[in-house]
Amino acid sequence: MNWQETLTEYAAGFIEGLARAGVKEVVISPGSRSTPLAMLFVEHKDIQVYMNIDERSAAFFALGLAKASGRPVAILCTSGTAAANYFPAVIEASLSRVPLIILTADRPHELRDVGAPQAIDQLHLFGRYVRWFADMALPECGQEMIKYAKTSAIRAASVSNGLLPGPVHVNFPLREPLVPRLQPTPFEYVTDNTLPLVAEGHLNIPVEIYKEISTKCSMAKRGLIVCGNIDKNEFPEAVLSLAKKLGYPILADPLSQLRSGLFEKDMVIDSYDAILKSKEAKEKLKPELVIQFGGQPVSKPLSLFLKGIEESAEHLIIDGGGGWRDPNRISTQMIHCDETTFCRDLQTLAEEKNDETWKNLWFGANRRAKNVIKSYIQTISDIEEGKAVSIICETLPPESTVFIGNSMPIRDMDTFFHTNENNIRLMANRGANGIDGVVSSALGAAVHHRPLFLLIGDLSFFHDMNGLLAAKMHKININIILLNNDGGGIFSHLPQAEEGETFELVFGTPTGLNFEHAAMLYNAQYTKVLDWEDLQVSIREAASNEGLNIIEIPTDRANNLQVHRELWEQVSREINNYLQSDEQC
Amino acid sequence: MNWQETLTEYAAGFIEGLARAGVKEVVISPGSRSTPLAMLFVEHKDIQVYMNIDERSAAFFALGLAKASGRPVAILCTSGTAAANYFPAVIEASLSRVPLIILTADRPHELRDVGAPQAIDQLHLFGRYVRWFADMALPECGQEMIKYAKTSAIRAASVSNGLLPGPVHVNFPLREPLVPRLQPTPFEYVTDNTLPLVAEGHLNIPVEIYKEISTKCSMAKRGLIVCGNIDKNEFPEAVLSLAKKLGYPILADPLSQLRSGLFEKDMVIDSYDAILKSKEAKEKLKPELVIQFGGQPVSKPLSLFLKGIEESAEHLIIDGGGGWRDPNRISTQMIHCDETTFCRDLQTLAEEKNDETWKNLWFGANRRAKNVIKSYIQTISDIEEGKAVSIICETLPPESTVFIGNSMPIRDMDTFFHTNENNIRLMANRGANGIDGVVSSALGAAVHHRPLFLLIGDLSFFHDMNGLLAAKMHKININIILLNNDGGGIFSHLPQAEEGETFELVFGTPTGLNFEHAAMLYNAQYTKVLDWEDLQVSIREAASNEGLNIIEIPTDRANNLQVHRELWEQVSREINNYLQSDEQC
Repeated sequence: MNWQETLTEYAAGFIEGLARAGVKEVVISPGSRSTPLAMLFVEHKDIQVYMNIDERSAAFFALGLAKASGRPVAILCTSGTAAANYFPAVIEASLSRVPLIILTADRPHELRDVGAPQAIDQLHLFGRYVRWFADMALPECGQEMIKYAKTSAIRAASVSNGLLPGPVHVNFPLREPLVPRLQPTPFEYVTDNTLPLVAEGHLNIPVEIYKEISTKCSMAKRGLIVCGNIDKNEFPEAVLSLAKKLGYPILADPLSQLRSGLFEKDMVIDSYDAILKSKEAKEKLKPELVIQFGGQPVSKPLSLFLKGIEESAEHLIIDGGGGWRDPNRISTQMIHCDETTFCRDLQTLAEEKNDETWKNLWFGANRRAKNVIKSYIQTISDIEEGKAVSIICETLPPESTVFIGNSMPIRDMDTFFHTNENNIRLMANRGANGIDGVVSSALGAAVHHRPLFLLIGDLSFFHDMNGLLAAKMHKININIILLNNDGGGIFSHLPQAEEGETFELVFGTPTGLNFEHAAMLYNAQYTKVLDWEDLQVSIREAASNEGLNIIEIPTDRANNLQVHRELWEQVSREINNYLQSDEQC
Repeated sequence: MNWQETLTEYAAGFIEGLARAGVKEVVISPGSRSTPLAMLFVEHKDIQVYMNIDERSAAFFALGLAKASGRPVAILCTSGTAAANYFPAVIEASLSRVPLIILTADRPHELRDVGAPQAIDQLHLFGRYVRWFADMALPECGQEMIKYAKTSAIRAASVSNGLLPGPVHVNFPLREPLVPRLQPTPFEYVTDNTLPLVAEGHLNIPVEIYKEISTKCSMAKRGLIVCGNIDKNEFPEAVLSLAKKLGYPILADPLSQLRSGLFEKDMVIDSYDAILKSKEAKEKLKPELVIQFGGQPVSKPLSLFLKGIEESAEHLIIDGGGGWRDPNRISTQMIHCDETTFCRDLQTLAEEKNDETWKNLWFGANRRAKNVIKSYIQTISDIEEGKAVSIICETLPPESTVFIGNSMPIRDMDTFFHTNENNIRLMANRGANGIDGVVSSALGAAVHHRPLFLLIGDLSFFHDMNGLLAAKMHKININIILLNNDGGGIFSHLPQAEEGETFELVFGTPTGLNFEHAAMLYNAQYTKVLDWEDLQVSIREAASNEGLNIIEIPTDRANNLQVHRELWEQVSREINNYLQSDEQC
């Protein structure tokens, strides 16, 4: 068999394997060594190709696609430093458990580590951040090699989306010539042989342990459920039923998907972050038992509160991925069990609670905190970040998705995104909480969700400005709300803010960039918001906007800090009063 | 001792150690965990701080600083994916042997791998790409700990700039609170204790081996010296003297620094890339012995030529870093010896050759190739890349530095940058030959060299557009010549160019970006060149330009390809005629 045929069947076998395993999207960055895979991806009828020149943005774009679709997404680049640009997204995918299949073309063995151009050591390039690494054989002919390529692809997809989803890395050493055969269809010869189907298992615990936990719950009147970042289809319903039966309020992180939807939210507490800044609350709202799901919640007051009760409360952490997500070392039982299964099975066994005192105490505080937040916000007339986020939350069209930048935006969402019926989906990169790659991740998500709003600060926007090219090239509809305080706003909340000039140099880092030029570079529609009505109108119109829209809100770092501080003081005062008084309900 | 004092002395000790080891520059990306190091760097009187928000650009900027200064440069970022953004530059530094000291702030041990925010596994983050990795102890008080911090810094600097220069990684787990004491000077207490000086050795070989080599040279009338990418102060003089004594022409890569300067260039061949495309040349210009220095030369015809003589010629590769830079497996002797030392010591022993036939044969071909190139270029009237590079080369002001982008620009420089007296320094990232980070690397180099021109294609310019912020923030003087063929020009030279639509989608990747908007975003002066006179005027003016200047040359990929092909055909025809005729001189 000639070389081109060998190369084609081998590469087509791998791609067919990916398609059979349910991969529907690949993000490709241009390069020469990756030619056979790139050209054959274009030919596959079930796989959509997105070109993305900057590999860093490409990988984050794929991360967004995978998060939004729940399916593994492949990324492909050429040999050399190209793949190293994937690293930030690989780490984020690893920590946030998102299925990515990283395909890197490589120089063949004889060109490794001998000073050949664009040849770097790609073996285990991403270290311990990938769930699986395979250095593929050089293409060879024969049915057995096609099957090897195909099963490797199926295995890659399976591992990436298995018990603990995350990135996998498959490295392809390839020799020239690199152009595959495209006509007739290269997939004809690789579709006929048998393949393993994969049945993915999930973790469960023995019934005896459920019984023990059920007994603990019966004895604990004052219980809380904490839901951090978790996005699994049937989980909200399951956890809400469990909460109801146990009479335990759910402290629901904005990324728990429990704050918005058509389900009943009478067990959902959304303002614990504000409440738990009050001294009185930290005393009077203490639980005896905590059941926690998902990633670490955004709220620092919640962390401190939970840490403060480690001596007195049982604390169960349930993790379907078998991880150890307990930075404060407060768990008394680490439970490796699928979260939805856990809720359902425990609910079946659990005793129904009828005393509503505990629940009412929490909901009384929650109502008061929200009222203070709402009335305080009314008093703000000039453009300011907190109120901006509050207005955005109130104005979002139903069925919207909001991708939230790290640092301040996610914290502001925690404060201002209250329970509602609008079925809003919130997303963010909370694996490593980086400000990098956020624009691209949101664009990837926007392929699957519309309307999509990205709420982002200026440093994070700047960091991944290259990501905007995808919007232009793939005609993606996205509304970017840019909170521009010209620098690192979150640092103003830290002690180093006292250090004047050095602070502004090292932490403030104002760039003075006029982002309208960036908008023009990428053919975006651009609006600078000058008052609150502008903002509301812009958001309402956004639902039907086509293409890339950038809504910039210019704010002031010093003012933001002051507003936040005043707000927290007012809430704390109210909560202290409430909990000191008798009328607790 | 209180915590702030402990933290301050420990961190200040490390920074003082770096300063003592000759580190004069640090590039810092903003973050919270890195606070003590960042704030103390600002306080150190001998270290210049450059803030750079995008860590990927920051690391490449540092790479440029280090390449241009020859000194190790430190980079500092916070915990999380920030450090992963360094990865492309770390690989480039590793392969191109540039001293970088990577400092990463980390969460303390108890927050590792437990789902804590912004905590990733930073141990050995860069795998085998760093020469040394150290996970520092948490700050502790006492003279011994200060000395530990200080000697670790000295060791980091020493390893990074030792026998095989490259990146080192020092990871700093740090607990809150993170603000150091700044007044009175934090360096007072850490400057008084004794420290090791470092005497760096270099490789040399025994005199018996020099004698053997000298004998080989005496026997080989037809010898060549090949100089790839090498930039060591006294090397040009040493290798030129050796070449003269041996009567061996030097095939000098554009990055050998041998094509421009006030030294005699009567042994320097600059058009071998064009010459060696001729069949006749590959036969008649065969050497019996090759002595090769530096990284892999850019020229592919040269590679093929050298590969073609592996059976018949002795091939010595000299590498002062003890590496194995021989992708074609053509060396008959790998010599681990400092390059300048090798040239000097061999010259002392070598026999002077008086027969100039061999040398004249090569120089005759070289003259003819250059003449064809020059007259062909005259015939091009419309804007085109080859002629653009040729005009740039002729117009560059004396003492300029040119940072050259990878892909096409470096290849065009190989063709059009001929020997001259203008003392032009050429730089490029030829470790992994990436198109990433080139803008930032050039800006780092521009801090030390002026005037500096960056010659770059549009995809590479786009890839590191964020790098431009450094020009704005640090008021760096740079002239960027942007060869804009709207996509991946080099791919048109490959076989996949036959594939029409798929080719344009996967390889052509036109972005359609109007870079004038990017210029406005970064307050650049922007010129679009419309004819050859425009180009000459822009370059002449550039020597005295302040700040960021972008000169865009719009070109056409299809036309570029045609011009290159025609040019190579004309040169080959001329060289074939010359070598077939009798008048060979």
